[in-house]
Amino acid sequence: MRIAVIRKGHFNAAHQLYVPSWTREKNERIFGKCANPNFHGHNYELEVTVIGEIDPVTGMLINLKTLKDIITEHIEEYFDHKNLNLEFEEFKDSPPTTENLCIVIYNRLRTVLDEKYDVKVRLSETPRNFAEYPVN
Amino acid sequence: MRIAVIRKGHFNAAHQLYVPSWTREKNERIFGKCANPNFHGHNYELEVTVIGEIDPVTGMLINLKTLKDIITEHIEEYFDHKNLNLEFEEFKDSPPTTENLCIVIYNRLRTVLDEKYDVKVRLSETPRNFAEYPVN
Amino acid sequence: MRIAVIRKGHFNAAHQLYVPSWTREKNERIFGKCANPNFHGHNYELEVTVIGEIDPVTGMLINLKTLKDIITEHIEEYFDHKNLNLEFEEFKDSPPTTENLCIVIYNRLRTVLDEKYDVKVRLSETPRNFAEYPVN
Amino acid sequence: MRIAVIRKGHFNAAHQLYVPSWTREKNERIFGKCANPNFHGHNYELEVTVIGEIDPVTGMLINLKTLKDIITEHIEEYFDHKNLNLEFEEFKDSPPTTENLCIVIYNRLRTVLDEKYDVKVRLSETPRNFAEYPVN
Amino acid sequence: MRIAVIRKGHFNAAHQLYVPSWTREKNERIFGKCANPNFHGHNYELEVTVIGEIDPVTGMLINLKTLKDIITEHIEEYFDHKNLNLEFEEFKDSPPTTENLCIVIYNRLRTVLDEKYDVKVRLSETPRNFAEYPVN
Amino acid sequence: MRIAVIRKGHFNAAHQLYVPSWTREKNERIFGKCANPNFHGHNYELEVTVIGEIDPVTGMLINLKTLKDIITEHIEEYFDHKNLNLEFEEFKDSPPTTENLCIVIYNRLRTVLDEKYDVKVRLSETPRNFAEYPVN
Repeated sequence: MRIAVIRKGHFNAAHQLYVPSWTREKNERIFGKCANPNFHGHNYELEVTVIGEIDPVTGMLINLKTLKDIITEHIEEYFDHKNLNLEFEEFKDSPPTTENLCIVIYNRLRTVLDEKYDVKVRLSETPRNFAEYPVN
Repeated sequence: MRIAVIRKGHFNAAHQLYVPSWTREKNERIFGKCANPNFHGHNYELEVTVIGEIDPVTGMLINLKTLKDIITEHIEEYFDHKNLNLEFEEFKDSPPTTENLCIVIYNRLRTVLDEKYDVKVRLSETPRNFAEYPVN
Repeated sequence: MRIAVIRKGHFNAAHQLYVPSWTREKNERIFGKCANPNFHGHNYELEVTVIGEIDPVTGMLINLKTLKDIITEHIEEYFDHKNLNLEFEEFKDSPPTTENLCIVIYNRLRTVLDEKYDVKVRLSETPRNFAEYPVN
Repeated sequence: MRIAVIRKGHFNAAHQLYVPSWTREKNERIFGKCANPNFHGHNYELEVTVIGEIDPVTGMLINLKTLKDIITEHIEEYFDHKNLNLEFEEFKDSPPTTENLCIVIYNRLRTVLDEKYDVKVRLSETPRNFAEYPVN
Repeated sequence: MRIAVIRKGHFNAAHQLYVPSWTREKNERIFGKCANPNFHGHNYELEVTVIGEIDPVTGMLINLKTLKDIITEHIEEYFDHKNLNLEFEEFKDSPPTTENLCIVIYNRLRTVLDEKYDVKVRLSETPRNFAEYPVN
Repeated sequence: MRIAVIRKGHFNAAHQLYVPSWTREKNERIFGKCANPNFHGHNYELEVTVIGEIDPVTGMLINLKTLKDIITEHIEEYFDHKNLNLEFEEFKDSPPTTENLCIVIYNRLRTVLDEKYDVKVRLSETPRNFAEYPVN
């Protein structure tokens, strides 16, 4: 009798994609315009899925107000209006691709959401590009 | 060779969230503004997923016209422009949260859709809040 | 050299449509399911347009943070999770149709936004129904 | 540690639904207005999901530019502004339903995407009708 | 004190763009892939704006149920699942471009909507292409 | 008998909002998080409206393929994956607010679109913030 609850969030950030150990030419060949050293940016849209059992009294899997506040505090306020490359340890050694950002967000939420829940994160970088983690 | 077909629906309804055995203070502490005794309301958006095998002659899993009519008759006409708390036995003893409403919708569809199909329901209460039932 | 800035907002509310001086039959004939005395509800989506001249130093017509705060305080917090019929003087003598609600919102914003701006409001009751006020 | 990347695409096409071995009456009874012999058409929206392991150097599951180019070449340019019934061998013996078109798209992508990836396709024919293939 | 009410509609149709007095080469040079003689198609999305004065008793500019029924009868049922080139006198001598289709829809609605209203039509052929008629 | 045609476009860019002659404190007080000196970014969505008379032979106001190519060449390729502050003369002396960027885009399009057309630009910085230029 497991159910899922999904809550959306969003933040705006700047980034660039590059691997420091590569030449600029190789970075541009692999990452294209995303390797622009002056940065570009996105409106990131976030979808957090929490899975578990309903509380029979409240009829809630998780209080949506609580989930909203967790996303605001741990994801939106953490990343909003920031530069992913310059302001985050998490992207010092790995490029802030949609995939890596999605995993970083998952790991941040996993530490604050009760262990009884399963958690999934879907992140869009543009209206046509998404990542989802984890998957079976 | 299983495939899914998804059909969307929608209805508008009023509700409030409260547990009758709790004090009003406790209801407001847990449910916040949703506990307003004068009710508030939503445009509910529904996504019904039917899963099974394609009919090799028609190329259809289920006739989408049939699925649309089932959703209209058993969900939209049943809930549209109603008060979930005052007009439904289903929410006499359990609050009409998105989770509980999603399960009620699933159970109604499950009784009318052929047993050969698996069924899933995704229900949004606002563009940022969803429930999905069942999940693995 | 006039420019417009548009900011969206949203709130959820319950209502019913009826004219007290009419019989229930006439109310149901004119307003259909919207006349349900138990109320139904909607996710209202709001689009506020402010028109005027850009400040040449800031490059802004109006500070969008200010506009967002005005919409939150004077519209969203005023109407969100409320019953339009039971909790507002504005709808004591006139039904809370999308048209009337749009005008009430316009009048509230007009009193708090600087007179140097022109203001327009677009309000959706469902994804397929809108009102817009004023129009030329 | 599996992750999914999703990329959207779209194309516009004409089609009709009918089974050649049936009478026109039976086709109209089963397929309704979709059996119009003069054709009708749709804006098809496509969502391609690729699942696998991230490359630890690039932080990418698959280069999104590569995935976009594959979708453009093998799906969008193949189907866009075409008649599904008249111009494709794939629909000579089976009607171009959303389900069958979804499977044809999956099979085309499966042959060009590296075997190390799992692939899923979600296809919408209208904003309210979708198919998804494969499903567990 | 004029206000606008907007109601959305939609229909799916096939068409091609060509001018009979031109060669096929010229048609393909001007209309590109849209000149495919086998037809292609679209999900047309429609936005009908009605402008006038509110009825002070009902709080309505026009009964939205009436407006919905007019759009269903005179536009959706007229065009849905049809071939614009083969089944309509209106496009015998002029190509069914978004512009021409928008004007045809406007003219149909203008004859059935009360003269006291101003009317505008916005029509999208794809999520990125629109026409609007009339404009000042 | 004037008609409008609308075509959408989009690009992703980084920016920050600040006035060089102000202190950092004043910039942060006025522009808030948007003044982050490390930049942030957005997915900009663009809506170009062209207004004029239909060509009676083609049924087109402007060839939508031509309009799409103009937007791609003069707007999307010019701004996409760039830093608005560091890479554009246009924003050397005025901050790249939505309003100023909207006017810059309008001016670029105005020089390449035939004088017989009226032109309008609507630009969104986030799904909730827009600018529109010019307005009456």
